[in-house]
Amino acid sequence: MELNIKMIEKLIDIAIIEDIGSGDITTDNLISSEILGKAKIVAKEDFIVAGLDVASMVLEKFDKNIQKEICFKDGDEVKSTDVLMSLQGSVSSLLKAERIVLNFLQRLSGIATKTREYTLELKGLKTRLLDTRKTIPGFRVLEKYAVRVGGGYNHRMGLYDGVLIKDNHIAMAGGIKKAVASIRKKISHLIKIEVEVSNFDELKEAIESKVDVIMLDNMNLSEIKKAVKFIDKRALIEVSGDIRKENLKPIAMAGVDIISSGAITHQATAVDISMRLNF
Amino acid sequence: MELNIKMIEKLIDIAIIEDIGSGDITTDNLISSEILGKAKIVAKEDFIVAGLDVASMVLEKFDKNIQKEICFKDGDEVKSTDVLMSLQGSVSSLLKAERIVLNFLQRLSGIATKTREYTLELKGLKTRLLDTRKTIPGFRVLEKYAVRVGGGYNHRMGLYDGVLIKDNHIAMAGGIKKAVASIRKKISHLIKIEVEVSNFDELKEAIESKVDVIMLDNMNLSEIKKAVKFIDKRALIEVSGDIRKENLKPIAMAGVDIISSGAITHQATAVDISMRLNF
Amino acid sequence: MELNIKMIEKLIDIAIIEDIGSGDITTDNLISSEILGKAKIVAKEDFIVAGLDVASMVLEKFDKNIQKEICFKDGDEVKSTDVLMSLQGSVSSLLKAERIVLNFLQRLSGIATKTREYTLELKGLKTRLLDTRKTIPGFRVLEKYAVRVGGGYNHRMGLYDGVLIKDNHIAMAGGIKKAVASIRKKISHLIKIEVEVSNFDELKEAIESKVDVIMLDNMNLSEIKKAVKFIDKRALIEVSGDIRKENLKPIAMAGVDIISSGAITHQATAVDISMRLNF
Amino acid sequence: MELNIKMIEKLIDIAIIEDIGSGDITTDNLISSEILGKAKIVAKEDFIVAGLDVASMVLEKFDKNIQKEICFKDGDEVKSTDVLMSLQGSVSSLLKAERIVLNFLQRLSGIATKTREYTLELKGLKTRLLDTRKTIPGFRVLEKYAVRVGGGYNHRMGLYDGVLIKDNHIAMAGGIKKAVASIRKKISHLIKIEVEVSNFDELKEAIESKVDVIMLDNMNLSEIKKAVKFIDKRALIEVSGDIRKENLKPIAMAGVDIISSGAITHQATAVDISMRLNF
Amino acid sequence: MELNIKMIEKLIDIAIIEDIGSGDITTDNLISSEILGKAKIVAKEDFIVAGLDVASMVLEKFDKNIQKEICFKDGDEVKSTDVLMSLQGSVSSLLKAERIVLNFLQRLSGIATKTREYTLELKGLKTRLLDTRKTIPGFRVLEKYAVRVGGGYNHRMGLYDGVLIKDNHIAMAGGIKKAVASIRKKISHLIKIEVEVSNFDELKEAIESKVDVIMLDNMNLSEIKKAVKFIDKRALIEVSGDIRKENLKPIAMAGVDIISSGAITHQATAVDISMRLNF
Amino acid sequence: MELNIKMIEKLIDIAIIEDIGSGDITTDNLISSEILGKAKIVAKEDFIVAGLDVASMVLEKFDKNIQKEICFKDGDEVKSTDVLMSLQGSVSSLLKAERIVLNFLQRLSGIATKTREYTLELKGLKTRLLDTRKTIPGFRVLEKYAVRVGGGYNHRMGLYDGVLIKDNHIAMAGGIKKAVASIRKKISHLIKIEVEVSNFDELKEAIESKVDVIMLDNMNLSEIKKAVKFIDKRALIEVSGDIRKENLKPIAMAGVDIISSGAITHQATAVDISMRLNF
Repeated sequence: MELNIKMIEKLIDIAIIEDIGSGDITTDNLISSEILGKAKIVAKEDFIVAGLDVASMVLEKFDKNIQKEICFKDGDEVKSTDVLMSLQGSVSSLLKAERIVLNFLQRLSGIATKTREYTLELKGLKTRLLDTRKTIPGFRVLEKYAVRVGGGYNHRMGLYDGVLIKDNHIAMAGGIKKAVASIRKKISHLIKIEVEVSNFDELKEAIESKVDVIMLDNMNLSEIKKAVKFIDKRALIEVSGDIRKENLKPIAMAGVDIISSGAITHQATAVDISMRLNF
Repeated sequence: MELNIKMIEKLIDIAIIEDIGSGDITTDNLISSEILGKAKIVAKEDFIVAGLDVASMVLEKFDKNIQKEICFKDGDEVKSTDVLMSLQGSVSSLLKAERIVLNFLQRLSGIATKTREYTLELKGLKTRLLDTRKTIPGFRVLEKYAVRVGGGYNHRMGLYDGVLIKDNHIAMAGGIKKAVASIRKKISHLIKIEVEVSNFDELKEAIESKVDVIMLDNMNLSEIKKAVKFIDKRALIEVSGDIRKENLKPIAMAGVDIISSGAITHQATAVDISMRLNF
Repeated sequence: MELNIKMIEKLIDIAIIEDIGSGDITTDNLISSEILGKAKIVAKEDFIVAGLDVASMVLEKFDKNIQKEICFKDGDEVKSTDVLMSLQGSVSSLLKAERIVLNFLQRLSGIATKTREYTLELKGLKTRLLDTRKTIPGFRVLEKYAVRVGGGYNHRMGLYDGVLIKDNHIAMAGGIKKAVASIRKKISHLIKIEVEVSNFDELKEAIESKVDVIMLDNMNLSEIKKAVKFIDKRALIEVSGDIRKENLKPIAMAGVDIISSGAITHQATAVDISMRLNF
Repeated sequence: MELNIKMIEKLIDIAIIEDIGSGDITTDNLISSEILGKAKIVAKEDFIVAGLDVASMVLEKFDKNIQKEICFKDGDEVKSTDVLMSLQGSVSSLLKAERIVLNFLQRLSGIATKTREYTLELKGLKTRLLDTRKTIPGFRVLEKYAVRVGGGYNHRMGLYDGVLIKDNHIAMAGGIKKAVASIRKKISHLIKIEVEVSNFDELKEAIESKVDVIMLDNMNLSEIKKAVKFIDKRALIEVSGDIRKENLKPIAMAGVDIISSGAITHQATAVDISMRLNF
Repeated sequence: MELNIKMIEKLIDIAIIEDIGSGDITTDNLISSEILGKAKIVAKEDFIVAGLDVASMVLEKFDKNIQKEICFKDGDEVKSTDVLMSLQGSVSSLLKAERIVLNFLQRLSGIATKTREYTLELKGLKTRLLDTRKTIPGFRVLEKYAVRVGGGYNHRMGLYDGVLIKDNHIAMAGGIKKAVASIRKKISHLIKIEVEVSNFDELKEAIESKVDVIMLDNMNLSEIKKAVKFIDKRALIEVSGDIRKENLKPIAMAGVDIISSGAITHQATAVDISMRLNF
Repeated sequence: MELNIKMIEKLIDIAIIEDIGSGDITTDNLISSEILGKAKIVAKEDFIVAGLDVASMVLEKFDKNIQKEICFKDGDEVKSTDVLMSLQGSVSSLLKAERIVLNFLQRLSGIATKTREYTLELKGLKTRLLDTRKTIPGFRVLEKYAVRVGGGYNHRMGLYDGVLIKDNHIAMAGGIKKAVASIRKKISHLIKIEVEVSNFDELKEAIESKVDVIMLDNMNLSEIKKAVKFIDKRALIEVSGDIRKENLKPIAMAGVDIISSGAITHQATAVDISMRLNF
C-alpha cells in the first residue's frame, strides 16, 4: 500500500480523539481490558473493498496485541456475508475500535465501489478515468487511494503538484499564449502544463502554445470529437464536466486520453459493513 | 455557531496542507497576490445550506483581508443560482481557497439537506431525529453540527459522553441488571444510562433496572408499539435500525421519543456549489 | 487504570522537557548510560498511594529497559519505609527520571490521602464525596483519578460533559424554569440537568422544572435538612460550599446524595517519598 | 513579566481543552455570546498575589475583546474583598474562562504567599531562600516565577542548567575529586560546579577540589556553623534538608549564602479567590 | 515571496527555542523590555542578499511592534557597509532576535551569492542552472528559494514531485524500457519522466522509451556533445556530476538545457552581516 | 552519544517530510518494498566523520528492519573509499533514506573536519577552542556536537544557559560595574558572569567587578598579551574576533584560556560521501 502514512496516522489520531475522548465510559466501566475474544468484520452487501490496511492501522493504534487475519485485499469484490477480517484480542479494545474501523472501511469501500462501476464502462479502452480535488477535506490521500483501488487513476494531488491553467488564470495573464510562456519560465522541467479550454479559439491557441495537456471543459460529444481530430495527438486530451456513468463510454470512444469525474468521490456513499463479536 | 473551534481549525489546516502543500504552482506563477477582484459562491441546485461559518474560517486562514458578505444563514433553504457569499479581495487568495471552501460547504450542506428531508417527516410530532457515530473520521463535530442545522438532534458525541449498554456489554457483564448496577456505581451523577434491547425479556429487565433510556434495536413497527405500551413513560424510548424516510412517521406516531439514523450522515452526498470570479 | 492515556503522555513529555531540557549536564558527564544498578522508591511517611502507573509510564519514557516491580497498588495504605517500587536498570536513567517520578507520585498520593481522610467520615453512609473543577490546570484527569483512588467520586470532568445551571445562567435566562426548558430542548437525551439553588424559592422552582439534580449551595445544616425533606426524592441532592472534614458526616446524615469538595484537590499537599539507589 | 511564554501558552491550551473540551454545554445553550457584562476577580482571604499576567493570557485566549483592568501587580499583599481585576466583555466568555483563570491564580498566589512567609524570616540578612525542582510537572516555570514573586530566588531550572554533584554521582565517579576533575573538562566555562556533602571528610575533599558551591545536606545547626567556619569563603554555601520556617533564621545567621526549600512549592495550597459577575 | 510559509514558521519557532530556551538571562536581567532604540543590519562584505522576508518574519515572531524598513530586495547586489534593514523598537527584543536573524540571512545570502557566481557564467545562454536535493535537512524550501534569488532554477523539491529514474531503479526494473513503461502506467499525466544515463546504450534505450528528460551523468564534454547531437531535441537534456564554475559555460554551449549543481548549496558558506544598535 | 534526542528526532521528521512528502513517486512505483539488498556508505575524500548516530536514527525512522554495521565512530579520521556503514534491508527503504542520511553526515562531518584543522593548531596547549551561536537555525545541538567531535568545546548553547554581558548591555546598564552588580542579584548561584571588553578601561572595570570570565573582543596580539598579564589569573580569559587558523597558536601561546570561532561552523562546507547499492 503506497499511502502517505504520516497524514493517515494523524487522521487516525484525530478520529480516536473525537470518538473516545476521555474514555469509553460504558466499556471501561463494564469490561476488563484483560478479557479476550474474537470478532469478525463482515460485509452486509456486495462491494469493492478498500481500506483494509487503514483498518489494520486503526486497530494497531488501539491495541498492538490484537491479532488480525485479513481475508481479502483492497480491490477485491466482496459479497454480502463475506468476512473481511478476523480479529482476536481484548474485547474492550475491539469494542472501542469498532466504529472507527468501520467508518474508514465504509467510506473508502464506497468510493472504490463507485469508481469500479465507472471504470467498468471503460473496459478495453485506453482512456483513463481520473478523480478530481473534490474530496472530503483531510481525506484526499485516502480517497485518491480508494479511486486507484477501484481502477481509476489520480489527477494531481493538490495545487502543488501539477499546472492546470484555467479560465481565470488565462484572463488574468492576458491570454493562453502569455500564460503558458510565463509559467514555462518558472516551473520545474519535470512538470507538464495543462490548459483548460472551452471553445475552439482557445483550443487553437493552446495547441500553438505547445501545451502538454488540454482539458476540454464542458464540451458536448460532437465538440469533443471535433477537438480530438483537431488536436491530432499534439497534446494529451482530458475531458471534464457533466461526466456520468452513461456518457463515459461514448466520450472515451471519441478518442480522449483522460476523463475526470468528481462524482466518484463526492457522490460516493458508505457501504454496509459491521463487526460481530464472539466470546 | 456553537462549533468546536479548535478541532475545526486543525481540520482546516490539514485541508490546506493537503491541497496547497508547497504552493499553488499555477496561480503563484501567473497572478500577483496584489491583484484584487470579486467572487461569488453560487448554489447550482436547491438545498439546505450548512457550513457558511466554516467557509468563512477557511477564507480567513488564507487571507485575513478578504471581505465577506454572507447572504444566507446556516439552515436556510437556498435555490439554484442563489448567491451564498460575496467575496472581495486578492484574486490569488480567492483562487487558492476556492476548492477547500467548496468541499466543506458541499459536504455539510449535503448532510443538512438529507437531514431536513427526514425531519420534515416528523413535522408536528414530538419525536426527535438523532444522528449516530457513523460519521467521516475527523468530521464528527462538523457533521453533527450539520445535522442540527437540518433540524435533527445529536446523539452522544463519542464514547466519552454517554452510556449506551449494548448486547456485547450485557453479555460480558452477565445480564442487564448486573451491567446497570455495576455502571451506576461508577459514572457521574450527571449522566443517564441507556440500554439497547432487542426483545421483550431484555426490555423487561431494563425497566426493572430503572434505566433512563431504552433503545429498541431493529424491532418492527408492531413490536415497537407493544414496547411503547409496556414501557409506559418509565423511560425515554429510542428506536434504531433500518430507519428510512418512509418509516419515520409511522415509527414516530407509535409514541417513541427518539429515532436515530446513520443514513443522514453516511448516505449524504455533496450538493452542487461553485465559485465565480469577476475582475 | 482507566486514565486518559493521551493527555498523560503529553504531560509527561512536558515534564521531561522542563526538567531535562538539553540534557542532565551532571549525570551525562559523569556516569556512562551503560552502568546498571538498582533503586527503591520509598515512602517516608504514612499515606494512600496513587500514581504508580503514571510513575511506570514516566520510567518507560526515559528508558524502556528499566525493570520495575510495583509493590503496592493505587489506593493501598502505605507506611513510612514501605518500598513502593523496586527498579533495576541504567543508573543514569534512574537518576534522571527520579525527580519527575517523585513529583507525580507525591502530588497524586497527596490528593488520594486527603480524599481518604474525608471519605472515611462517610463510611457506611450512602452519600458520595465528589471533587470539583478546582484542579491544577493540565492535571485534571490525573487529580480526578487520585480522588477515585482515595474513595471519592468524580463530578463532571469539565464544562463539556454535564449541565450545571448556576446563578448567573439563571439570571441571564430569566429564571430557573425558562433556563431548564430552554436547555432541555438542546442537549443530548443522555445528559441530566443539575441546578444550583441558594434559597427555597429557587428550590421550589427547580423541583417544578423537574430537574434531575439539585445543588444546595452554601446552605447551613438546618436549611439542608429542610430542603431534603421538601425535595422528597424528586431529584438527586448535592451539597456544596464550606465543606470541611468536620461537617461531612452531619451533612451526609441529613440525607443528601452527594457532597462536593474543592479542598480534596486544592488543599492537598505532597506526601514525602524518595528514591534510594544501590549499586 | 519574564515568564517563558511559549510553555505557558501550551499549558493554557491544555487547561482550556481539559475544561471546555467540545464546549460548555450549559453556557453555550443558555447565553448568547453577544451579551455583555462586567466581572470582578475578588480576594476572599489575605495573601500575596501572583499570576495576574497568566490570568490575563488565559482571558485573551478565550476572547480578545474582554477589557481588563488589573488592580494590583504580582507580589502585592492583597486583603480579603480586594478586587484583583475588573473585567468587561462577553458574559459567555467570562463564565467559561472563570474556573481556569482562578485555578492558575489560586495556585500561584498560594506559592507566593508561602514563599513570602519564609522570606520574611530572612529580612535584613544576606542569605537567599531558593526553591528546588520539587514542583508540579509542567508548572515549573510558573511555580519558580511565583517563588520570585514571593521574594525567593531560583535554584537551577532543571538538570540542564546547573551542575549539582550528589552522593550517587560521587560514588559512581570514585570520589569528589575525580568527579569534579572529570566534569570540569566537559562543561561550559560559564557554569559553576556545586557538590553536595554530608560530612566533614566530604567537605574537605570538596574544598580541595575547588568547587564553586557546596551544599551542606541535612546537617544540624552546629555542624553548619562548623562548616561555614571551615569553608571560610572559599566557596558559596547552600544548606538543604529539613528546612522549616522556624529554623530559617538561625541557619541563615550561621553565615550560609543560600537555603533551599521544597516546601515553598510542594506544601503550598490554593488561596481563596472568586469571580463575581454583574450585568 | 513564494515561500512555503508554514514550514518556515515552524523552522523559526525551532530556531527561537534552541537559542532563547527559557529566556535570555543576560538581557532579561539587565534591560527593561520597554526601552526603545534603533538598529541597523549591515553588510560587512559584498554579496547577493537573500532572506530579507524571513528576517522580517523572525523579527515579527519576537515582537510585533518592531518597525522595519527593508532597504534592499532579495536578489540585490549589496556592498560592504550597505544597510540592509533599519529597525526601531524594544532594545531587548532587538538584542534577542539579532543572532537568529543574522544566522538566516547569512546562510541564505551565502547560497544566493554562490548561485549568482555560477549563473553569471551562463549569461546570454538558454541553459538553466538547477539545484539538487543536497540541502541542509529542514532548510530545503529556503535554500531552493535562495537559489532562485541567485538566478538559478529548482530541480524537484523532493522525491514526491518528480520522477527521476536512476541506475538502481533501472537495475531493479530490468532495464530502462521496462522501468519507463511500468511507471508511465502509474503516475499522473501531469508529471514528466526523467532517466539518468551514463553511456550511449542507455541513452539509446531512453530515447526509444520516449522519456521526457535525459540526465547525462558524469559524462565528459565530448560525450556530452555527442549525446546532444544524438538526442536531437527528442528530450530535454540535463547534465549532472562534477559541475564547477569553470566548466559551466562549455557544457552549456554544448547545447544542453539544464545543468544541475549540488555545490551551490552544500559548498556555500555564510556571508558576513552584523547588527548595530543605536540608542 | 550525548545528543539532545528529542530535537534531533523532530529535525529528522521535518527532513523526511520535506524530502519524501506524499511519497517517492519513482521508487514506490518501480520497486517493491519487499526486495532486499545491501548498501555501503562510502567516503569520497579524507575527513573527520561525525553524525553516524544521527545517520542511524534516520535509517531507523525509515525502516526498523534495516541492519546496520557502523564501521567507524564519530571523531575517527576516515580516508577516501573507506566504508562508513554497511547496510542491509529493503532496497526501497535504502533508496529513500539515502539523500537525507548523506545530507546529515556531510554537514556534520564538514564541521568536525574544519574544527579538527583548527584544534590541531592548539595541540599540547591548555587553550580550548570554542564554537559560537553562529549555527544553522535548528541545527545548533547537532553542530555543537560536531564541534566536540572535532576536538572543540562548546560555548553556551543559547541565551538561556550563560551570562555574557556585551557592549550594548553595558551601555544600557550604565557601565560594567552596574551591569555586573545588577545581574549578580538576579541569576542563579550556579552561573558564572562573562563580560566582553574591547579596551583596557573596560578590562579594569571588569576585573574590579570580579567577573568570572573576560572576553577580549577584537584585540590584536600585543593587546591580548598585555591583557593576560593584567588579568593575572583573576578571571578566565576568552579571545574572540578575527580568529583564523593562522593566528590560533600565537593567541593561545599568549596565555588565554579560550578562543572562540564562528568559522568552524558557518564557514564549514559539506564533505563528499555517497551510498552504493548492491543487489
